[in-house]
Amino acid sequence: MKGVICQQTDAKLVDVAHDFPRQDIRTCAFWLREILPYFPPAVHLVVVDPGVGTDRAAIVIRAGDHALVGPDNGVLIPAARTLADDDFDVFEIPEQHSGDTEATTAALDTVSEWPPNPSSSTFHGRDVFAPAAARVHEDGIYSFEAESGFEPLDTFEDLRFPEPTIRQDGASGTVLAVDGFGNVITNIPGSVIRDQDQASATVNGVSTPIGEMYAAVDSGDRLVTVGSHGNVECAVNQGRGDDAFGLEAGDSVELSL
Amino acid sequence: MKGVICQQTDAKLVDVAHDFPRQDIRTCAFWLREILPYFPPAVHLVVVDPGVGTDRAAIVIRAGDHALVGPDNGVLIPAARTLADDDFDVFEIPEQHSGDTEATTAALDTVSEWPPNPSSSTFHGRDVFAPAAARVHEDGIYSFEAESGFEPLDTFEDLRFPEPTIRQDGASGTVLAVDGFGNVITNIPGSVIRDQDQASATVNGVSTPIGEMYAAVDSGDRLVTVGSHGNVECAVNQGRGDDAFGLEAGDSVELSL
Amino acid sequence: MKGVICQQTDAKLVDVAHDFPRQDIRTCAFWLREILPYFPPAVHLVVVDPGVGTDRAAIVIRAGDHALVGPDNGVLIPAARTLADDDFDVFEIPEQHSGDTEATTAALDTVSEWPPNPSSSTFHGRDVFAPAAARVHEDGIYSFEAESGFEPLDTFEDLRFPEPTIRQDGASGTVLAVDGFGNVITNIPGSVIRDQDQASATVNGVSTPIGEMYAAVDSGDRLVTVGSHGNVECAVNQGRGDDAFGLEAGDSVELSL
Repeated sequence: MKGVICQQTDAKLVDVAHDFPRQDIRTCAFWLREILPYFPPAVHLVVVDPGVGTDRAAIVIRAGDHALVGPDNGVLIPAARTLADDDFDVFEIPEQHSGDTEATTAALDTVSEWPPNPSSSTFHGRDVFAPAAARVHEDGIYSFEAESGFEPLDTFEDLRFPEPTIRQDGASGTVLAVDGFGNVITNIPGSVIRDQDQASATVNGVSTPIGEMYAAVDSGDRLVTVGSHGNVECAVNQGRGDDAFGLEAGDSVELSL
Repeated sequence: MKGVICQQTDAKLVDVAHDFPRQDIRTCAFWLREILPYFPPAVHLVVVDPGVGTDRAAIVIRAGDHALVGPDNGVLIPAARTLADDDFDVFEIPEQHSGDTEATTAALDTVSEWPPNPSSSTFHGRDVFAPAAARVHEDGIYSFEAESGFEPLDTFEDLRFPEPTIRQDGASGTVLAVDGFGNVITNIPGSVIRDQDQASATVNGVSTPIGEMYAAVDSGDRLVTVGSHGNVECAVNQGRGDDAFGLEAGDSVELSL
Repeated sequence: MKGVICQQTDAKLVDVAHDFPRQDIRTCAFWLREILPYFPPAVHLVVVDPGVGTDRAAIVIRAGDHALVGPDNGVLIPAARTLADDDFDVFEIPEQHSGDTEATTAALDTVSEWPPNPSSSTFHGRDVFAPAAARVHEDGIYSFEAESGFEPLDTFEDLRFPEPTIRQDGASGTVLAVDGFGNVITNIPGSVIRDQDQASATVNGVSTPIGEMYAAVDSGDRLVTVGSHGNVECAVNQGRGDDAFGLEAGDSVELSL
């Protein structure tokens, strides 16, 4: 993918992550929503694509001053909503539909053709998304659709994270993701534990200290804290919260104060 | 290695991969052959070097408009053949042979000397290949040998992948590599399963659906498909083909239609 | 972190490593000391920060022509000593101390404010160190403190590696780190085994060949050699020395000739 991009543009390449959980659309959608708003305007290329080769569309989203390139499976949508205050445009990436593909050789021959020829049915990251990302970068985020034949797409695969229920004395939420340290990231806003006086909360029935930082408790001890994303995290200081709390993405979290 | 390169050139650095199987020359040679042709002309630095410190040569290959820098152990050869249509030139990287090396300190003092002083016997990536790659980039892919004292090398360690046997009703092949998803990549050309009408094939005695993409079968089911490299893959949709088929690099694959 | 940096500077980004052992200050301090001196003058940003959110300071060190940015927990100190021949200056990164933080949203709003507002108590890499690193790069390594309000810090968290005891017939040392290949890196200088005639040494009571390179012994066999850092390594050719020798970081190593 980097080779294809370097063939077509001198754009600066920035690696965001190569170790997201494979084919886990929801977790990747969460991280993209958290990470991409910190970037200056850019073309963001995303390949989390379990449906590669099916009739799912390949899309470019213009969201504010950013462009997102990837599969139409929802992975780009939460980031697009955050980047553009819900006001984003979706375009389909045009493709050549020649019936006869000869894989590697053909791909190499057509790497600078447009529209791209998806020589493989298993790696559109290289064959479709990378050429499109280079194209959007060269044409410009505000005018690529006219320059290179992208067509507006009215419907797209949506993805919304579950909403928590906030109560006077706590919240019912869901685990959105577990990070590389094992911290369990919920969808419960940090204000639920930050804006009150108690020193502990009950998490799925177990009393747990509330801390402002991981080191608020001893090494190896559990706590709830507000993570860098602004949500409640179930964590262990210098340990793995997912193991200690027995929680993984999608699980329910009952938080009582 | 990046530090040494940055000392000597402003070249753009592009990370290709840091997670190839350690010291596995054949698998890395396969991936380099698949990946490097997608890049524009560049100096490609490769360190897969189990023989570091022995008398194996350190080499630069000029292959078409590309240069490949690394150990003379075969890892660069399949990529060189593909990049240059078999017509490539091999040069030996000159080295200072001072008997007395004081490791780190000496390495730091000599990082911009030429020819390089391989201060360590365990990390020529840093001490020999990186300075040579920077040199080739600065001198130019077409003229580095004259500029910096590289000598032509007549013999080199070759590496060829096994050839499959193609029959009317199938093929006998070999597993070249297993990718990070667990997809088993054979040396059998994709045309064997693409250019015929059957919906399934027999793989080492087990009937297996033929699919155009992973998602052609249910999640968790096995299939054979044509991978992004153009060869037959034994895969599992959203699972690991290597586990399901019991195959690893070097194993035989008998494919019958 | 990369997004925050890209917001504020066009500096070239070079990834050094993302796979150091998590929260292991000593091991990371070792690798930084070994790696950073190979770089040209640069701003080096380091996040190994188990005390994030506590009152540990956030610091910038000017060490020779380099600047090091990270937490005041010792992780930067051995590299600073090596880069600057013990003569380095430590500055505290100023922070806004607003009592009311609204995490993500606030962080995004204030990403280009100075001094930085550490919106999170769990990710100062993004909220404090990245803005400071960009600032130091833009202001210049020799003048950032005057430009941007960094204050000299007289005391800092020190970190020194244990010194080995060298004898006529060997040395008593400590394991500083285990690398990704499983090679056990001691603090015993390579000269102990290099400057003598014997073909083997005794390591914690077990006779072990001395080799100039890993391939000096058969694949799978143990050896002691001098690593690329200049120290004695306990290794296995194409295998894991840590498993074979039963050694990990902090263990004692008794080497007899």
